Amino acid sequence: MSSSTGTLFRVTTFGESHGPGLGAVVDGCPARLPLAQADIQAALDRRRPGQNALSTPRNEADTVEILSGVFDGLTLGTPIALLVRNHGQRSADYAPLAEIYRPSHADYTTEAKYGIRDPRGGGRASARETIGRVAAGAIAAKWLFADAGIEIRAYVESVHDVCLPREILAGLAAPDAPLPTLAQIDANPARCPHTPTAERIAGRIAAARAAGDSLGGVIRCRVRGVPPGLGEPVFDRIEALLAKAVLSLPACKGFDIGSGFAGATMRGSEHNDPFEFRDGVVRTTTNHSGGVQGGISNGEEISFRAAFKPVPSIALSQQSITRAGIPTELSIQGRHDPCVLPRAVPIVEAVTALTLADLCLRARAETGFQRKR
Amino acid sequence: MSSSTGTLFRVTTFGESHGPGLGAVVDGCPARLPLAQADIQAALDRRRPGQNALSTPRNEADTVEILSGVFDGLTLGTPIALLVRNHGQRSADYAPLAEIYRPSHADYTTEAKYGIRDPRGGGRASARETIGRVAAGAIAAKWLFADAGIEIRAYVESVHDVCLPREILAGLAAPDAPLPTLAQIDANPARCPHTPTAERIAGRIAAARAAGDSLGGVIRCRVRGVPPGLGEPVFDRIEALLAKAVLSLPACKGFDIGSGFAGATMRGSEHNDPFEFRDGVVRTTTNHSGGVQGGISNGEEISFRAAFKPVPSIALSQQSITRAGIPTELSIQGRHDPCVLPRAVPIVEAVTALTLADLCLRARAETGFQRKR
Amino acid sequence: MSSSTGTLFRVTTFGESHGPGLGAVVDGCPARLPLAQADIQAALDRRRPGQNALSTPRNEADTVEILSGVFDGLTLGTPIALLVRNHGQRSADYAPLAEIYRPSHADYTTEAKYGIRDPRGGGRASARETIGRVAAGAIAAKWLFADAGIEIRAYVESVHDVCLPREILAGLAAPDAPLPTLAQIDANPARCPHTPTAERIAGRIAAARAAGDSLGGVIRCRVRGVPPGLGEPVFDRIEALLAKAVLSLPACKGFDIGSGFAGATMRGSEHNDPFEFRDGVVRTTTNHSGGVQGGISNGEEISFRAAFKPVPSIALSQQSITRAGIPTELSIQGRHDPCVLPRAVPIVEAVTALTLADLCLRARAETGFQRKR
Amino acid sequence: MSSSTGTLFRVTTFGESHGPGLGAVVDGCPARLPLAQADIQAALDRRRPGQNALSTPRNEADTVEILSGVFDGLTLGTPIALLVRNHGQRSADYAPLAEIYRPSHADYTTEAKYGIRDPRGGGRASARETIGRVAAGAIAAKWLFADAGIEIRAYVESVHDVCLPREILAGLAAPDAPLPTLAQIDANPARCPHTPTAERIAGRIAAARAAGDSLGGVIRCRVRGVPPGLGEPVFDRIEALLAKAVLSLPACKGFDIGSGFAGATMRGSEHNDPFEFRDGVVRTTTNHSGGVQGGISNGEEISFRAAFKPVPSIALSQQSITRAGIPTELSIQGRHDPCVLPRAVPIVEAVTALTLADLCLRARAETGFQRKR
Repeated sequence: MSSSTGTLFRVTTFGESHGPGLGAVVDGCPARLPLAQADIQAALDRRRPGQNALSTPRNEADTVEILSGVFDGLTLGTPIALLVRNHGQRSADYAPLAEIYRPSHADYTTEAKYGIRDPRGGGRASARETIGRVAAGAIAAKWLFADAGIEIRAYVESVHDVCLPREILAGLAAPDAPLPTLAQIDANPARCPHTPTAERIAGRIAAARAAGDSLGGVIRCRVRGVPPGLGEPVFDRIEALLAKAVLSLPACKGFDIGSGFAGATMRGSEHNDPFEFRDGVVRTTTNHSGGVQGGISNGEEISFRAAFKPVPSIALSQQSITRAGIPTELSIQGRHDPCVLPRAVPIVEAVTALTLADLCLRARAETGFQRKR
Repeated sequence: MSSSTGTLFRVTTFGESHGPGLGAVVDGCPARLPLAQADIQAALDRRRPGQNALSTPRNEADTVEILSGVFDGLTLGTPIALLVRNHGQRSADYAPLAEIYRPSHADYTTEAKYGIRDPRGGGRASARETIGRVAAGAIAAKWLFADAGIEIRAYVESVHDVCLPREILAGLAAPDAPLPTLAQIDANPARCPHTPTAERIAGRIAAARAAGDSLGGVIRCRVRGVPPGLGEPVFDRIEALLAKAVLSLPACKGFDIGSGFAGATMRGSEHNDPFEFRDGVVRTTTNHSGGVQGGISNGEEISFRAAFKPVPSIALSQQSITRAGIPTELSIQGRHDPCVLPRAVPIVEAVTALTLADLCLRARAETGFQRKR
Repeated sequence: MSSSTGTLFRVTTFGESHGPGLGAVVDGCPARLPLAQADIQAALDRRRPGQNALSTPRNEADTVEILSGVFDGLTLGTPIALLVRNHGQRSADYAPLAEIYRPSHADYTTEAKYGIRDPRGGGRASARETIGRVAAGAIAAKWLFADAGIEIRAYVESVHDVCLPREILAGLAAPDAPLPTLAQIDANPARCPHTPTAERIAGRIAAARAAGDSLGGVIRCRVRGVPPGLGEPVFDRIEALLAKAVLSLPACKGFDIGSGFAGATMRGSEHNDPFEFRDGVVRTTTNHSGGVQGGISNGEEISFRAAFKPVPSIALSQQSITRAGIPTELSIQGRHDPCVLPRAVPIVEAVTALTLADLCLRARAETGFQRKR
Repeated sequence: MSSSTGTLFRVTTFGESHGPGLGAVVDGCPARLPLAQADIQAALDRRRPGQNALSTPRNEADTVEILSGVFDGLTLGTPIALLVRNHGQRSADYAPLAEIYRPSHADYTTEAKYGIRDPRGGGRASARETIGRVAAGAIAAKWLFADAGIEIRAYVESVHDVCLPREILAGLAAPDAPLPTLAQIDANPARCPHTPTAERIAGRIAAARAAGDSLGGVIRCRVRGVPPGLGEPVFDRIEALLAKAVLSLPACKGFDIGSGFAGATMRGSEHNDPFEFRDGVVRTTTNHSGGVQGGISNGEEISFRAAFKPVPSIALSQQSITRAGIPTELSIQGRHDPCVLPRAVPIVEAVTALTLADLCLRARAETGFQRKR
């Protein structure tokens, strides 16, 4: 079990989907950051179930309480403990599944590893576990913006075979084009910043729900305002830590940065990003590197993708076995998201914020790292 | 700077491409493992330059010396220090580049971060840095096989737009099909286990060299014999640590596991891996999960991909700027690989071995983890 | 700020003396340990204020709630979060002190470091912070005993100049003599296992309270049932980690193990512990080593001391300065312990348990470490 | 095995007493520190055997080579690898002991833990292991002085029952009295800054050697120029990390800071250090705290003691058993120090420097920590 991450900005999360509560302890957040419950609640509200027609009908309030680390509206430099109590978990929904290994869930592997599991839901493998990360990430994001002017923005790029059209992708990726705003992304339940695509995605998700099936997709995450110098080669290259953060999310199966997998089909003469001196600053004219060279940020936008599989909880009938090895058929009832992508947007932002806050502190230790130009 | 990785099986690497030497200290390797210099040398010989017509004409012997941790052919449980001296580094090749930022190299970011860099090559960002990892990985791989029967096999799946044909990919991925052998993979300089494809790749690389250009590609890595129970949710899920290990390699831009990015376009009903009880063991009938569920190995083959960009050292002329910000043109002479993929095969295997050895020890601590069925 | 400790059995604590609550997250506790709230509450009751005439008249219930990690009376292998809410903190007592640096408290250093402090008590420097450690330590202690038969027993050896008499010390230290029982130690408020000495200590503490002064003292901690092989040289020698654990407690100024400072005045020929083969086991005939040789346990009793200074909160008038640097006089009113020693007994036991649980898991990873003979 | 220490300024050591070599990798040393081989060699020369009449007649050159991390006389910010080759190890001396457990050595515990040991000396438990720490510590000390003006000075305070006289101790401890200089301390082989005491110690050591016996003693270590704000409560309080560093040294059995064990017999009204505003700075008028309050430096001198047992290698006959459990008598011949104290002085300084360099970097990350007044 590894419930902590980070070297200087460290987060420890806790909580099962059906236990008394979930949360996080944030250790190493610098002192004197203005912080209120509302800063954290806003992020949790973006991830909570039941927000709109696309997500699960479970309506969980997920109200956070700050237990320590803040006095008079300012952080003290001491650990900030955050608690969200579980309410209205319908544990009875899970009773029929207690003896069955749900396919592509963590039931079997949890039992193989620990010899025990909480049969009332996914335990720590549940997406509810990300509550602690989102709450902690809200603090990291606030500090990154306040201290370094760093801004993180994620959105849905594709669901199943519905993807942002090529020309929209190109426009979004144009050098120094404005990032989609939070309002633009949250304007539709699909969290895709292009309305026609968002509507097609919404239709696809509704159809999957009706069919008792589920869908995967891809999230794009972009970070602006990162100064040159973040990243700790060789093992903690910035892209290595981002990949670890993203791949530690439930249902995530892939990560790439900059040109990514497409870059593997390019020639060096196309892929290299030429340097120029622009507005008094060293810049590159293209950004196939995704803002990272040699594992260290170069001041350009950091841009990466995260691929998510279709969630495994589906109403359609499936083959499996019981704990005793007896073949059986199952159909997962209950209130499950047919597609995790829209709700995963704030989660990807949160783990990105945690990763970058830690790297900022590490860079500052080493080199007296300063706010970007 | 982060030069160490792992929690219990820990590796620290050191060395610049043009300094006195490079190497690693392996701490936490269990005692009484038979270990000889030749075990490590064999792995280094697979990564060294000048092996064959496809790689750089630099012919570096890269001979390793064991400085500590082994007595009478057995590990002592104490740190194993490994040293490879640099010989014949042609530092003069780099003199013309000392004042220029090479595009998509780490020159600019290193200087931005540290205020200094070794101008005689890429320093720690050089692929020579992986010597330490390959040497350490050889020890991890030996222990994994001896102690747990775990076997790691990587090969080139594509270079530029030449990819293993669909039917070959399907054959390789068939459930319980034999892994390609080391001999099959090393039978051709491209390290691709399908001769016709290997020959096409070799041709493509030769053409890129002639054109003064470079090529990227994709490596597949597969692991057999992993027992259920490896992986430490939530932050150290097995796929998260593998992604971190792979993305910390020079030139790597992407990672996916199991269905990966392709899985994002599937439905849950297709993607879920049904359980069955086969030969007295819990198995899945498909393996879209890539051997991992909920961040923990499930006993199936672990299978992932790593995408590498084309190496940035090309002879073709490029635009850049000097350290003073003056635009300039450059053409990188010297003895560079036009395609890093074949030599990256043992490197990917090494970081995979290091990651799994650490997870094995961690699992053993927790649960008295045992060798697979 | 460093609020986590341990490599495999990891504890993160949180909470200020006057915030909403305090607690801990225990990560890495093995699965399937029987655990109830009462196991933890019992330890907290031993450290809580207001237990008896010797301690502060503050009567804090300090009731713990288990927020996660336990299902049906067994640990799940997931993080165990523990919460104790603050009640009845009389923050107003501190108002007059908000602008004054209390001598030998952490007021000045906290402000120098963080630029902010919670003026309502000692914040994280308060002894209330140890609530999280005692709660977590109760889990560690239960696991150590259940899994390895390891038993930890601390008691007060001296307060001010009242010390256990030489012959009592010799009797307690005699090879294989029974440890004082918990009942014997808790039989008197001084937590000293020799009634006449306990009564003298009680008198001394009562007199100090009456005089508005405070007293220091020494705690002895002894551990039985430790198998040979715990400790991770060179940096995490068992005595090094015990020293770190003990010196991280508020008011602790010294640590020694085995012969300790007295051993510095001995000759090698007196100090060396001869080996013998006793009852089929390798034993030593004396134990100047304190159960540790070369940083690794040798199977003998581990025995160490912790020295505590007199607590700095005294009613007697003192000189100090305000935050503005103006000389001032202060007298600390409020409900403070005149001597922390009796309540520190369960705290020393707790940090010892946390240290040893972590080392047990680490030893098990390395060498398949087993329960003692 | 734990061969690494530190969070940001990290050191990994390697090497057995009779293997090919010993050394260290220093990771995280800031870039652009002027560093030459001679800086490190000077520290090694202070710890090496055979310096003078008091130490072992083994004359080991212990020449260090810098393998990486330095270019053109400046650190690169990359890992600095240091190697000292073993020469002239008389392994044959140990042949008669291969089957015997030497009393109070690590022979038995090493074998109990690892199932194997290098019989040619103490392996990693040998004092030769400290070569890596001293070499690494020299870099830390140089950086601390260059960057923060911090100066570390240790000396022998007592050997066996010969201690600095009370009035000398008082003079040395007087507020703001000058530290003994390196020249004063190294003026005599005993490394005690009071010539008459040094001469008595030298006599005592000579007599112990003649008698085939050994002696323990106490080292005092003092640190000047530490700014307020170093130390990371709660677990990495500055005194906790110093205690861990010191207790991880071979033969060390105790640590105390400030008033230490003596403070346990004081009253709060005597022990508290009153604040005053002196020369524009917050100071204390006494320093029973030893420069630390609440685990954080307060700007006063940091002063602590380390107790060392008599070394266990003695020529006098001793009782022990063989590996097979047969009682036997042994007498350890060979070239051993009868008293480790004088050579431990630079070792204590080294681990202190490593601890403080790490805490400086951590403080800088958190709070933009600056050089002292």
